[in-house]
Amino acid sequence: MSTISDVAHRAGVSKSTVSRALNGHRYVSTEIRDRVVRVAAELGYVADSSAASLASGRTRMIGLLTSRIDGWYEAEVTTGVQEFLIEIDHDLVLFSGEDTAGSRARLFRHALPRRRLDGVILVGTCPSPSETTDLASSGAAIVTVGTRTSAAPSVGIDEAAAGRAIAEHLISLGHQRIVFVDSSTMSAGASARTARAQGFKAAMRSAGLPARLRSVRGSDWTQVGFSAFRSALDSDTLPPTAIIGACDELALAVLAASRSTVSEIPDLSVAGIDGHPHSALFDLTTVQQRPRLQGYEAARHLHNLLTDPRSPVLHVTADARLVARGSSSPPPQFPNS
Amino acid sequence: MSTISDVAHRAGVSKSTVSRALNGHRYVSTEIRDRVVRVAAELGYVADSSAASLASGRTRMIGLLTSRIDGWYEAEVTTGVQEFLIEIDHDLVLFSGEDTAGSRARLFRHALPRRRLDGVILVGTCPSPSETTDLASSGAAIVTVGTRTSAAPSVGIDEAAAGRAIAEHLISLGHQRIVFVDSSTMSAGASARTARAQGFKAAMRSAGLPARLRSVRGSDWTQVGFSAFRSALDSDTLPPTAIIGACDELALAVLAASRSTVSEIPDLSVAGIDGHPHSALFDLTTVQQRPRLQGYEAARHLHNLLTDPRSPVLHVTADARLVARGSSSPPPQFPNS
Repeated sequence: MSTISDVAHRAGVSKSTVSRALNGHRYVSTEIRDRVVRVAAELGYVADSSAASLASGRTRMIGLLTSRIDGWYEAEVTTGVQEFLIEIDHDLVLFSGEDTAGSRARLFRHALPRRRLDGVILVGTCPSPSETTDLASSGAAIVTVGTRTSAAPSVGIDEAAAGRAIAEHLISLGHQRIVFVDSSTMSAGASARTARAQGFKAAMRSAGLPARLRSVRGSDWTQVGFSAFRSALDSDTLPPTAIIGACDELALAVLAASRSTVSEIPDLSVAGIDGHPHSALFDLTTVQQRPRLQGYEAARHLHNLLTDPRSPVLHVTADARLVARGSSSPPPQFPNS
Repeated sequence: MSTISDVAHRAGVSKSTVSRALNGHRYVSTEIRDRVVRVAAELGYVADSSAASLASGRTRMIGLLTSRIDGWYEAEVTTGVQEFLIEIDHDLVLFSGEDTAGSRARLFRHALPRRRLDGVILVGTCPSPSETTDLASSGAAIVTVGTRTSAAPSVGIDEAAAGRAIAEHLISLGHQRIVFVDSSTMSAGASARTARAQGFKAAMRSAGLPARLRSVRGSDWTQVGFSAFRSALDSDTLPPTAIIGACDELALAVLAASRSTVSEIPDLSVAGIDGHPHSALFDLTTVQQRPRLQGYEAARHLHNLLTDPRSPVLHVTADARLVARGSSSPPPQFPNS
């Protein structure tokens, strides 16, 4: 079996350069790195990460924790995290799964610490104080994405502002009866959805309008869409002229339900929050965020913490902007502006 | 710092039971496992996976390799893989990123081997013979999902049959001018898409009809949808009465484009393949597959290979079925059946 000396000799560099090249330090030229990787492959030399991590105390592994990887937001954040980790040659260990007390205890006490991860990125979920302690005692740095806690740096949009912006857009079009619908079963990121609802309520209050909120359950988006649509109608008051979905996936489901139903509401406006690619496709008004950039930024910040533990605890507010499309228009009783 | 003996003593079990419980062997009762995990947490004992893996030769880590994690199919497969890995207490290391020659070389020669992964699941991509050798020499077992190679077990639907089924459905409705559209930039799994196109061609040939195929490029689904729609029309022959998307995401994009365009084609039928949740939402006819189950099955099979290396190389054909919905109907010149 080849040794690091063999690789250094054949590649014409020092042993420490071989180590730096194979471990992806940024201060090795691409040319030397490619040559070392090629020579190492030719000689069948593979640095053993178990042995290397025992020696260095660093595993070059970052954990990513999320309740679901099949949500648009979570998958985009993960893609951005991965993009940065490839640049610094770290690997991503994915911890996704249902977010119950039992599974969280298993994660924070057992699965996360045993890997001696250099850091953990939590997507759409915050660590409790004891979980933060558990992680810190295992030596892992923490960054959250899409949620904010005082204990760790975070990256995410101002969720309440997003909720306000979409409500204010509909109010400015002349809507007065607006319902905000949410679904705990299908949308990830409970704290983000709660903050969006708060923003909606604040905007309605400022405009002197009643804030109507509905929460529905369902096992798939079609079901959730119909439930949300029906629950928005099912009320003692007049039906709404506009419905806001807590996220685009929910808003799209409501849009589909409203179109396939013989509607009692002519020209119902529907709007969401997120900027899911299907929002453009189906002409849905939304507040557009860019979670891929958020993931990249979170990984970059985590790397800063690892290379300089004195880095400040930063809360990065990512950009989001209203994108008005065909799904929102003035309510029927108002003439077009 | 606590030792394994401390945990064994406090939990009232043997050291080997502590080890088995913390390493997730299936033959430890849930009650004992929970007790050991709790006691280990109380005492602050964490098995060091680096040291453990040097001793056992097993890392209890499975790599998952895919060109993108933000595609519906890939995210669903990953969810299923994760579900099984949680059951056997293994961790998932995610390798996603653009699929270029350079990045693949880096992956197979460097990133994958250095982790001493017990196994690797390739989603939507096949290993080349030399890549198979690289992986095998690092001791990792291989299973592919959504693609098939003779070198490794695989799980996936019969992609050609899916392409045939959707074509035959449209032919049976009376369609004769059908275009199959594909996009290499937005859909993952090149080999699956090629096989689907082959199935489409076979069905058209059997029916004595011309098989028209179009491939388009674009940076987002909206763009791809419009390009595909226009390219299906842009032809010396009569416009098609039906368009098949190589995957549901593409078919939905075509559907949206066709609806937002002043259409030269009354009652255009559109159909896809996959069973994306938005296909139900937007009433898209499709061939429904269940990638989450495929991921679970692939991880289970990988585990079998690890526990018994004599396990046969199996190719599991997952189920898929036609789901006819409102987006497909007889062409205008035919009376409704």
